[in-house]
Order: sequence, then C-alpha cells, then structure tokens
Amino acid sequence: MSIYTPPPASARIGRRRVSESGPEESSVIIVMQHNASVKQIADAVARVEAKGLRVNISRGEECTIIGVIGDDRPIDRTQFEVLDGVEKVVPILKPFKLASREMHPPDTLVPLNGINVGGNKIVVIAGPCSVESREQILETAIAVKEAGATALRGGAFKPRSSPYSFQGLGEKGLELLAEAREATGLPIVTEAMSSEQVAIVARYADVIQIGARNMQNYTLLNTAGESGRTILLKRGMMSTIEELLMSAEYILAQGNSRIILCERGIRTFEKYTRNTTDINAIPVLKQMTHLPVILDPSHGTGKWEYVTAVARAGIAAGADGLIVEVHPHPEEALSDGVQSLRPEKFAQLVSEVRQIARAVGRE
Amino acid sequence: MSIYTPPPASARIGRRRVSESGPEESSVIIVMQHNASVKQIADAVARVEAKGLRVNISRGEECTIIGVIGDDRPIDRTQFEVLDGVEKVVPILKPFKLASREMHPPDTLVPLNGINVGGNKIVVIAGPCSVESREQILETAIAVKEAGATALRGGAFKPRSSPYSFQGLGEKGLELLAEAREATGLPIVTEAMSSEQVAIVARYADVIQIGARNMQNYTLLNTAGESGRTILLKRGMMSTIEELLMSAEYILAQGNSRIILCERGIRTFEKYTRNTTDINAIPVLKQMTHLPVILDPSHGTGKWEYVTAVARAGIAAGADGLIVEVHPHPEEALSDGVQSLRPEKFAQLVSEVRQIARAVGRE
Amino acid sequence: MSIYTPPPASARIGRRRVSESGPEESSVIIVMQHNASVKQIADAVARVEAKGLRVNISRGEECTIIGVIGDDRPIDRTQFEVLDGVEKVVPILKPFKLASREMHPPDTLVPLNGINVGGNKIVVIAGPCSVESREQILETAIAVKEAGATALRGGAFKPRSSPYSFQGLGEKGLELLAEAREATGLPIVTEAMSSEQVAIVARYADVIQIGARNMQNYTLLNTAGESGRTILLKRGMMSTIEELLMSAEYILAQGNSRIILCERGIRTFEKYTRNTTDINAIPVLKQMTHLPVILDPSHGTGKWEYVTAVARAGIAAGADGLIVEVHPHPEEALSDGVQSLRPEKFAQLVSEVRQIARAVGRE
Amino acid sequence: MSIYTPPPASARIGRRRVSESGPEESSVIIVMQHNASVKQIADAVARVEAKGLRVNISRGEECTIIGVIGDDRPIDRTQFEVLDGVEKVVPILKPFKLASREMHPPDTLVPLNGINVGGNKIVVIAGPCSVESREQILETAIAVKEAGATALRGGAFKPRSSPYSFQGLGEKGLELLAEAREATGLPIVTEAMSSEQVAIVARYADVIQIGARNMQNYTLLNTAGESGRTILLKRGMMSTIEELLMSAEYILAQGNSRIILCERGIRTFEKYTRNTTDINAIPVLKQMTHLPVILDPSHGTGKWEYVTAVARAGIAAGADGLIVEVHPHPEEALSDGVQSLRPEKFAQLVSEVRQIARAVGRE
Repeated sequence: MSIYTPPPASARIGRRRVSESGPEESSVIIVMQHNASVKQIADAVARVEAKGLRVNISRGEECTIIGVIGDDRPIDRTQFEVLDGVEKVVPILKPFKLASREMHPPDTLVPLNGINVGGNKIVVIAGPCSVESREQILETAIAVKEAGATALRGGAFKPRSSPYSFQGLGEKGLELLAEAREATGLPIVTEAMSSEQVAIVARYADVIQIGARNMQNYTLLNTAGESGRTILLKRGMMSTIEELLMSAEYILAQGNSRIILCERGIRTFEKYTRNTTDINAIPVLKQMTHLPVILDPSHGTGKWEYVTAVARAGIAAGADGLIVEVHPHPEEALSDGVQSLRPEKFAQLVSEVRQIARAVGRE
Repeated sequence: MSIYTPPPASARIGRRRVSESGPEESSVIIVMQHNASVKQIADAVARVEAKGLRVNISRGEECTIIGVIGDDRPIDRTQFEVLDGVEKVVPILKPFKLASREMHPPDTLVPLNGINVGGNKIVVIAGPCSVESREQILETAIAVKEAGATALRGGAFKPRSSPYSFQGLGEKGLELLAEAREATGLPIVTEAMSSEQVAIVARYADVIQIGARNMQNYTLLNTAGESGRTILLKRGMMSTIEELLMSAEYILAQGNSRIILCERGIRTFEKYTRNTTDINAIPVLKQMTHLPVILDPSHGTGKWEYVTAVARAGIAAGADGLIVEVHPHPEEALSDGVQSLRPEKFAQLVSEVRQIARAVGRE
Repeated sequence: MSIYTPPPASARIGRRRVSESGPEESSVIIVMQHNASVKQIADAVARVEAKGLRVNISRGEECTIIGVIGDDRPIDRTQFEVLDGVEKVVPILKPFKLASREMHPPDTLVPLNGINVGGNKIVVIAGPCSVESREQILETAIAVKEAGATALRGGAFKPRSSPYSFQGLGEKGLELLAEAREATGLPIVTEAMSSEQVAIVARYADVIQIGARNMQNYTLLNTAGESGRTILLKRGMMSTIEELLMSAEYILAQGNSRIILCERGIRTFEKYTRNTTDINAIPVLKQMTHLPVILDPSHGTGKWEYVTAVARAGIAAGADGLIVEVHPHPEEALSDGVQSLRPEKFAQLVSEVRQIARAVGRE
Repeated sequence: MSIYTPPPASARIGRRRVSESGPEESSVIIVMQHNASVKQIADAVARVEAKGLRVNISRGEECTIIGVIGDDRPIDRTQFEVLDGVEKVVPILKPFKLASREMHPPDTLVPLNGINVGGNKIVVIAGPCSVESREQILETAIAVKEAGATALRGGAFKPRSSPYSFQGLGEKGLELLAEAREATGLPIVTEAMSSEQVAIVARYADVIQIGARNMQNYTLLNTAGESGRTILLKRGMMSTIEELLMSAEYILAQGNSRIILCERGIRTFEKYTRNTTDINAIPVLKQMTHLPVILDPSHGTGKWEYVTAVARAGIAAGADGLIVEVHPHPEEALSDGVQSLRPEKFAQLVSEVRQIARAVGRE
C-alpha cells in the first residue's frame, strides 16, 4: 500500500497526447462481417494504418479478424465501427488507465483525520444533508463525533431538482461548517456544484464532494482535480462503474490521486426504495481500481429504516467506509429528512458496523 | 415466531370472493382534478357506489377527494382512473394480504433439514447449476455437506434462453439428486419449470424452486402451491418487490405457507456484472413480510470473484440464508461455470459468512 | 418475400445436435489476459480441442487471441470464460440462427384474414383486454371490424399479478370469442398462459398469443410451436431484443415459422407512463430477423391518451401492424380500462395510421 | 398560440419566495397508518400548522387522511413522511408550475430562422457531433442547408466520458460555426458545458444547448437562463420527464421562456442500441407542457442505420422537430461517427420526414 502519485506533467488531458511513451499498448480487435469482401478488408486495414496504428490480420474460415495495435493512448473504437464490412470492434484494454489496478496494483491511501482511507480502518463520514443553522450543525457535529464519526458532512450548496426547494445557505453554510470543525476537530466534507464554487469550497473544506448529478460535469472534475484537495466522487445514479472510473481518470489526469469513490445507489424500476444500492459495485471497484471506495446507504435506500442494514452490508462487502446522513430532528430537516438517522440510531449503526468490520478483519 | 397456516378454504383465488368477512377493509383515495365539475364528482361517487363500495367525500379548497371503502378484497384502482375529472387514484392498502407482516406479524419458520428457515440459524443451500453426471453431483454433494451446507441444489430441468444450450438431464437428473440425498442426508432443492413438472419434481425434491423467469407463471404458482411442498420462490430479474410478494400471495392463497423468498439480482444498465444484487430488498422484505428471505449471490453477480463478498453482505443485511452455485470443475460446467465456486472457495465462503452471522447475532 | 419453412426434423432442440451438417460454422474469440503465461495459453487451447473444436491462434504484442471454430451449433462461451488467464470471450455469431435474417434474407409472411403479415399491408388487431360478457365482446368485435381491424383480440385466460384480480372467463371466454368470429369474420387472437392451455386455446383461436410474462416460459414455447398455430410472441417487459429472438428460435426449432413478434414496452425508471415503448426495437428487429413485427401501443404507454400518437410512430418506424386495446366502456372494464380506447377513438386511430402507412409507402 | 413571457421579477428562485400571492394553492395529502394513535394524528396536524399551512382532516374507518393546504409554493412532502404514524404523503399538484400547460395552456412558440418552433412547421437541426475543421463544418453546413435543415448544430466544447477523447476545438470551433452561419444563413446551435462557458457561447451561438449530462447542472441552468438566449435543453439519459420539466422550470424562473425541450434516449438494459428512444415522452411532454419538443434520433439509437426510421416515428408521434448528426465522412469523425448520417442519407431522411409531417397535418 502506498500514497499513489500519478504521472503529473505528461498526463494532462486535452487534445495533447497523454504521454510520449510507455510500456502499455492499447489495442482493439476488428471483427469483419462473415461476407466481407477482400476490398472491404483491405480498406479497413488501410484506415487503421492511416491512423498510425499497426495491424495483425488473422483470417479464419468463419471471418477475418484485424488486430489493431496502438501506442499508449486508448483507441476510440467507434471510428472503425463505421467502416463497410465491419461486424464489430472489440476493445481489449479498459478505457481508463491511471485509475486501474493493473497500472497501479497497491491500494491508494487517502489521509483523513489521521486515518488512511483505503487502509485497514473503516472511515465513517456523517452529518446532515444540508447545513440549516448554527445550532443544527453544531449539535450534529458533536453527536456524530461522540458516536465515532471520522468526518462531518453537510451541504452548503445544494443541487435540488426543483428551483423551489431549499438551495442551501451558501458561504454562510461553509462558515458554520468551519465553526463545527473548530468545535469538534472533525474534518469537513462538502459539495461543490460547479467549477466556480471550487475555490470557495476549497477554502473551507477538507474534502470536496462531487455529487451524483455532477459526476460527468467535466469542467468541475478538472477544476476540482487541479485544486489538489481530496475529492469524494459520487457515482451518478445512472452511471456505469466504468464511467465512474473514467470520471476519476479526469481527476487523476490533473495529478491528483486523493480520490475517494462513493457508491450511492442507482436508478432502477424498483419503487419501494428511492434508489437501488449496487452492492456488487463494492467488490467490483475494489478489484478494478486502487482507489478507496465507500458506500452511502442513506441515498442508496432513501429510507432511514433500511440505512443500518445496508451500511452493515457495505462493510461486509469490503467497502472502506460509509457516508451517512444524520439529523438531530429529521422531521424538521429542510431536505432528505426521510433518509436521515437520529443521532442515537447513528450511534447504534456505528456499533453494529464495528462488529461487521471485526468480522471481516478490519477496525 | 410461529409456523403460519394461512386461511385455507375461503382464500382460494379465482373469480370467487377471497373470504366472506374480515376485520380489514380495503380502500383507495380518488383525487379529483382541480377543475372537476360537480357533475364529474357526482358521477364518480355514483360509480363507486354502483360497485357496492362506500364513499367518504372530503371537499377541500384545492380539490375534492373521494375515499373509497370496500370490503376485504383489494380494489382494482384502474377502474376509477379512467373516469372523467379524476386526477389520480391512490391505493391505501398494499395489494397483498396473506404475505404481509401487518396481517401476520410473527416470522414464519420453514423447516429444512432440522433448521427453521427464518429463525436464528442461517441456511446455506449449495450445489451445481445443473446436474450433469452421477460423479459430478455426488462429488459436489459430499463437498458442500462437508463445508457446512444445509441443503443441495441442482437443476434437472433447466430454463435456458437458447434452445441450443444444455436443457438438463430431466428425470434422470432427479434420480441422481435423490441418490445424492441418500449419500449425504442433504435435502434437495430443484426447479420445476411448468405445472406439468410439479408432480414429478415433488416426487423427488424436498423444496420446489420456482425460477426467476417463472415468477409470474401463475399456472405454475397455483400448482406448486397445491402440492404442499416447500417452495423456493425466486424474484424475477424484472420484477418489483411488490410483484414478488404478490406471487407469494398466489401460493399462500392455496393454503401453503412453506415459502422461502429469494433475491437473485435484477436487470439494470450496469454491464460489469450479470445482474445487480438488490441488497435493499433484504431489509425491505424482512419488514414487509413474515416469510423468510435468502440471497443468491451467484446469479446476483454472475462472476465467482464477487460471490463471497456479496454473500457476506447478504447476511449482514439480515438475510436468513444463501443459495450458492458450487461446481467441482467450473471450467467443465455445462452451464453457469463462470459464476460457480470451487468447493474449497465455497468452504471459505461458509467460514467468512459464519463470522458475519455471529456479528449480527445469528448462527 | 416468401413463406419460410424452417428445417424441421434435424432442428429439434434438446440435448441432440441441431443439425448434422451445414455451411455455417460458429465461433468465438478467446482474448487471453495481457500477462497470460505460455502454460495458460496451452491449457486454453487444449480445452478447446478437447471439446472437438478447432483453434486458430494469433499472437500479438499486446495479447494472444485464440479463435475457436466449431460446427454449426452456437458455442456456449461461458465454458471458456472460467479458464485461468482468459480476459474475455467474444462471440462472433449471434446466438440465434433460424430467426436471423442472415440465414433467411427474405421477409417471412404470416397469413391472417387474407393479409400477409410482414407484407405491404398493415395489420391491426383490436379488442378488449379481457372477454367479459357476450354483449361486450360482440359489441367490440362489430365496432373494430367497422373501423377496419384485421383481427379480434380478447383474453379468456388472464395473467394477473394479483390473485385477487379478475382471472378471465376461461373456456367460456373462448366460446364467446368464437361466436364473435362467427358474427364478424374476424380471426381470433387470444393468450395461452401455460402449455396445458395450448390445446384448448388452439381449438378456438386463430393466433395463440404468448404474453410478456411468459416470453421465457420454454415449456409453453415448445408446446405452442408444436401446435402449428400462428404465434403472436410478445417481448418480455425486461427482456432484450436478443432474448426475444431466442424465444422465437424455440418456436422455429419446432418447425413452426408462423410467428408475429410484438414490441409492447419495456420497464424503465420513467414513471409517467406504465412502460417505455422501445421504438428503436422496430427497425432493429426488421434488420435482424425475417419475422414480421407489430407494436402494442396500449401496453407500451399504459394510458389511452398516448396510444394513438405512439401507434402512428410505430407504423412510421416500419412496424408491420398494431395490436390495440379497445373497450366499449373503458370505465367498466374489469382490466386495463385506463389504456383502452373507446371504439370511436379507435376508428380515429385507424384513420390516422392509414395516413402514416401511405406516407411510408404501405397500405 | 403565443410567445409566453413568464412572470419575471417575483419568480426568481433561491431562498426567496417565488411569488407573494397567487390563485393556485399547493397541497399534499398525508395518509396516516392504519393503526396511528390519536396522539400521532394530533402531532402531525400540529406539525403542519407550525409550518403555516392549513389542514383538512378526514377520518375514515380505515385510516385518517390529513389534507395539507398551502400557499402557492410547492410543499416539500418529505418533511411529513418522516413523522410517526404516517403511512405516506401524496402530492396533489405537479412539482413544476411555469412549465406546466395547466398554468399556460397555449403552445409557446420559439422563433428560429424565421420558423416558430412549436408551431405548424417542423424544425430540423443538423450537423456534426464536433466541429473538427473549417472544411468539415462548411461542407456539412452547405449540405444540410441544401437538404432543408433549419439550423446548424456542431460541438465546440465536447463533454466526453474519457479524458483521452477529443475534447473539441473550443473557441476556434465557435469561430468556425460563425463562419458557417455567414456562408449559409443557418443559425447555430452549440453546447455550453459550464456556466463559465455561457458568455462565450452566447457571443457566437443562436441557441445554447444544455447537454444530457448537464440537465441537472443547476448553476449552468441559471446562467443560461439569465443569458436570454434560446436554450435547447436535452433530457438526461437518466432523468425522468418530470425532472426535465423541473430543469426547464429553473430556466423559466429566470424569466426566459425560449426553451426547446429535446428527448434524446434514456439508458435501459437493452444492448443492441446505445440508448432507448423514449417515444412515449413526445405525447406526454406535449400534453404536460406548452414548450416545444424535438427528438434526437442519433443519440436515441446510437446507430445510423436506425436514425431515419426513428426520426419518422418522432414526427409521427407529434414532435415539433428533429436534431440529427450529419458528417460528410463518418468514418473519419472524431466523435459519434457510428451514429452520423452522410449528407445524402440526411437528404433522404428530410424527404421521408416531410411525408410524415404532411400525414399528421404539418409542414
């Protein structure tokens, strides 16, 4: 295990090359149609070579297969799918590199309040959906600290689907979070909704959260990456695991590897819960990437009754931590009250999760 | 906790009444449109009364609401949605009754090999996807028994999406399963794909499995229910939790409450795994119904690498047991090899799950 | 265009070979992992050869690719995915054969009431969700005939998610349908819910419908295929297009090519409509298969207000016809009233669809 | 029909009230649990009244229902869901107002190149996914104009899931688009990916596109709304129709009603197409909102072979126009080549769509 520093300079993204040389080679396989003509095959080969890539042709009885061997940049396979006589184009390498465990086998450790997230110890981030008042955030901060939380969460800028819903206290909310940190020592996790907000959020926060709705807001990813702050990157509610890793790749490409990934539930046809917690994503991500992975059972279920059970499941599945919504008076919450735990239920959650952590050999 | 016997005679389904009297009353709320006319409201009331139902009108400034009070049969709300001036119709009661915990608060216990499924002890059903040969099923049965399994699973009749895939050994497979039970003492769990197969499967099996693709095969549900055998009812990959409970209701309505529900993953847009294990479904089902609930992490993930992590998660979330695919030589399996565990990995799974069971206060 | 007769004898499915010889050869590509050892590659090759399949090895700088060349049976690729050192296994041929347009390029025409479904003329099947009474079905049959329908639909056996909903009139319903045919000359389309019902349904019906919930009820597919009757095969609400074609393959493998495919909406996260009509499926199916394809805008939307617009869209997209729910008194319907059109709205639909048909060069 | 000007001053969003008074009143219904105690009911009523809202209690035999009558602001129902004894909270009004057709029955017309989008004439926006070079964009602009396009689309800032994909030419691309407008007279539609880009995009573009990934980027919605430019708002691939309308509400709340909504396909489990075109969304949106609605069959299908069929379907379903990807040399496109039409195929599409438009009584 190690603190991973991605190759900074040459890895910058944009229209430039990602790096000038490297041991890996990307490749795709072009499968020609059953009845592709000799001319179509020759044309496809010519097209590949015109892109500066090498080919490796395999003629079977069934069909011809063209191996495309590139340099270290992932190849955009769609440029070949469009050619006449092509049945399909199969990628051989995954479309992310810096985030991949193949590239960087040891676990990346992200320091937070004296813990290395991704290491043996489980991290628990807790707090209200929104910062609503001085009393509310201080009361919550003290309560979650007492119950064993590692960090305090709370939204100052809130993305809300309705323009009529409470939009957060803005900078005032950030100041209250800083005051709560002062009072409790808990580091602050809070969301930046746009690249303009990154500077001000970075001034107050220890960890900048990029929310589910913004997982593919690339301007924000780049700016947050450049800030050098630790980033909590939440999976979009209908984004694939691969897309989550490609969004992490944007941040890594800025030279910032202090990234905590977060599974927070995906959108499905099921109606009894607000989202469907993709518990599979925990072992899949732990296998595919070296970055730490935490679970948000509050958004994952959308109902406080199910939060503790799914929190236990997350740690049992191998998650490195949890982020949980806690509110001292959920019935008065300006947002997400229905999925927030009262402090005493949260303390119970921490105690149950501790048992599970021990059962899987962690703290 | 108790062995629950549903009301047998009058509960028979069909076009008859479900029971002649009862304390519960069903109801829906009809919300009239903002601008509904007095005539539309009167017509809606007349329609409700013509159905033999009582009404309870509430006229607000915003809109008029008609409460519909019925007898003990759930009301089909779509008959009111179609009326002029109706904005929507909201059901008040859940559409299942015998399966609901409100109707029957204590946990139903289903006996299996000396264990009460749904009680304190965790059940583990294990075995190959398909019975392939005498050697294969005996080797597996002995191995899973040694590792601590409660029952043996194995398919004799196999539902396969392709007509060209192996379709199972049929009755020969059932005989081999019986031989494996003889040799190990493990009870047999195996699938019936149609109502015609129920009789023959019931002759050999201890538990009749109704597979995901047949969860809404109502002819099969009725026949299996009538057989009196214990039923393992798997959630359809495209079915809601509510629909699963309504399919259980079909079986309960036949007077058979020996039902084990099984979450086995649902279909989503995610491509890294074959299905998405709906871990939320575990606490939701435990809250909604008195029936025991187990998890199938093999189908839930579709890749053996993730099976153990998700098995741990299932027990941590409160599942009463697991059903796991185990094959002595997955690379030679005629079906589902890619999601089958080797016996030694399965033994490891059982040992890890045991730790989790203890951490949640179970055996 | 032609009436297609699939190869009957040797194509019988089960554990037998599909046919003894043939010009096509199936194949898959095994992509070995980047760092696969020479032994792993040799083992994979040995495994392929042990299955009686030939190999074609291509060693690239990036990775080794093993082409697997089989006989005419599709190869189950999962048996190779499980081998050590294998990155992935890519199928080259589609998993269906008899249903594929590559195998049989001309459109299959299915005769119905003097029309060839799949030919130039648009077919419109209409009628109530359920047969409820003599008056209801006769009134509807006469009305839809007058409006220009080709065939009459109506359910006698109804698959209902709740055991408490109206389950259909059974054989009495079939008799009423036959009487309506007598009165109007319209052929009858009605559902068989299980293989036991096939014989009785076949006695009365011109077209046996296999409903969405039964699309993967393989016992039913086989029995319906054997009956020789025309089959209306509806896509499951969460089945892929590929799975629909593989279910058609079951019927074709019984020597029966009188199959009409039906897109009827899939299940998604969208809540304003009951299902999401997959309009893309129309041109995709027309490209992939020679079988005719119709659209069910009633189930596709679930609300009568949207049925006509989506019916127009279906014909514009290239569908060969429509199946539409019509009820003389939707507010009294025992099922699906909310998505049923009154006869006068249906007449309007037929007239609008006629305009669209002409605009795409059809009748 | 009219050009709709939303109420500008008091409708500004944020933490302020939306407007001080109004004829509409919002409301929700609180359904208490079957066994709710008198105290729980009294507490719920007290909570409602403490929020300054009025109540209307209806005690049925089955359960008690509390009608909550508010002022003109939509009520956040989650604050009541969390109370003890509450079964569920049912909203009566839709959560959007300015976008709703109930509020503003006539169609809003958005002028574009002499056409009123939303009026009788169909609009067709066409062009490449990305602006790649002067030659490419000029060649395309001239070709699509000739074929009958109303406006030119082309991306200068490109949101790409991979940081290694072509990210667009940036401002250089905007200059080339302006040059193409100069040459052809076609207005320009191009995307702003973040609020910082709005100013520069507004300097060159006639219509600012907000892409699917940014549909819930509220900072961008507000800034684009304030710009006063016409906005093309694409539905997120994971967003409900209701969420699309709520995002439009953000723009309307800035006093800008020049909004064109765009259905562009949603994400489902189906794999043969890149997305699933939600054709139902066309009639649903036309019923729910006064804003014009167009369809993007290129993203909706993801494969050029299906674009024309789905374009026809969109117009047949009632869409006010289309946005189509066209590239003179799809096999050389830097992005989305596989779903781009060649100019001659596009000309064919326009001609076929014209037939459909006439069949539905439009031009």
